[in-house]
Amino acid sequence: MGGGHVDLPEQFSADPWFSRLDAGIRRLLLDAARPVTLEPGAYAFRQGAAADGMLGVVHGMLKASTLRSDGKEAILAVLEAGNWFGETSCVDHEPRRHDVIALLPCTLLHIGQRELDVLLREEGVALALLRLQSMHLRSTFALIEDATLRSTRARVARRLSRLACGDVSPGNTPRRAITATQENLAMMLGITRQTLALELKALAAGGAISVGYGRIEIESAERLSAFEQEP
Amino acid sequence: MGGGHVDLPEQFSADPWFSRLDAGIRRLLLDAARPVTLEPGAYAFRQGAAADGMLGVVHGMLKASTLRSDGKEAILAVLEAGNWFGETSCVDHEPRRHDVIALLPCTLLHIGQRELDVLLREEGVALALLRLQSMHLRSTFALIEDATLRSTRARVARRLSRLACGDVSPGNTPRRAITATQENLAMMLGITRQTLALELKALAAGGAISVGYGRIEIESAERLSAFEQEP
Repeated sequence: MGGGHVDLPEQFSADPWFSRLDAGIRRLLLDAARPVTLEPGAYAFRQGAAADGMLGVVHGMLKASTLRSDGKEAILAVLEAGNWFGETSCVDHEPRRHDVIALLPCTLLHIGQRELDVLLREEGVALALLRLQSMHLRSTFALIEDATLRSTRARVARRLSRLACGDVSPGNTPRRAITATQENLAMMLGITRQTLALELKALAAGGAISVGYGRIEIESAERLSAFEQEP
Repeated sequence: MGGGHVDLPEQFSADPWFSRLDAGIRRLLLDAARPVTLEPGAYAFRQGAAADGMLGVVHGMLKASTLRSDGKEAILAVLEAGNWFGETSCVDHEPRRHDVIALLPCTLLHIGQRELDVLLREEGVALALLRLQSMHLRSTFALIEDATLRSTRARVARRLSRLACGDVSPGNTPRRAITATQENLAMMLGITRQTLALELKALAAGGAISVGYGRIEIESAERLSAFEQEP
């Protein structure tokens, strides 16, 4: 692992939060960060743990989820290259609210709690984190509204659209292929795999997506968008 | 309305966010604020509007909600004396994500966007807002987890507990009386009034609450807590 200088990874220049920061703030964050690798199944952090810094994804994919005592899991977000996360506990010093676990081999940048506490006294850093947290708050509200106001079909369609754009940190150019398994997608929506399969079939019959072994692809963003508006 | 000096309202000294701020930061916020009054039914701000500052509740009660094109409403939070809100749009300059509407006659403190932009350059203010937003993010995640992971009965029990403690900004001493109508409670949970009535009846039969005309009271926090844990 070790410290030292970290070059600006290309992935971060596409992230809507990081790419819009002042160059000076980006430099401060990257200079304070050290690389960490995670194998699939390893935790970036666990629910209930004390905060030990924030993280950025250089390569790989992780999921943020909560586990209930009976073993049921809710996946809140999929984190991809470019995304930063874990800032909330660092700021309010409350325990981690979620598990974050690697789904693929990951390289992360880690800014430790002590380094972050120093950075937060630098001009512009707290404001930068405020913008990151605003983005996270907005994406969280969108999930609530979907869960409270939408039909299952509209919720599936909306989540597919969001995943195509990067989930918590939506960029401007949606991808065609969805980067989540059907199992994870069902856990994001709080529905069974059987229900999900039926909904995906309906979306595919409507020409919005195609579903193959181990993959979901968006065939028509317009048709998917029409399904998103269904009551 | 008019500007001028605003004394520290007693209500704010009980709010877990505001009361823990440095005295200097509290002073900066209050000096930048001017009082505004709202009649019941009047909007503090509307979904889609441009940000024009953040607000603190001196007296009264408001609800934050989203309206869908078919008229269905989701109530996200009840805001009471001491609560501050509206900071997210001021920070990311995206449109307001919710309607916030007065349920009772309200006196608010309003810190305008221009004043807030100036304040955010003062040391410690961005960090203070970061803590406020962390609190809002945590309460929003709690709603998602409830909606995804809990039974309707557990969700009703949890929301009653939260409302007794101040909803978005939970203090330490829960009140006995719930400050929300059954209609609003149903809209917070995304369930019908009929379903809510059945669940309240079950909670009352279990000795957790009592339900009278226009009021819900907590009879036993312990029994309510047991219902919150039901799968």
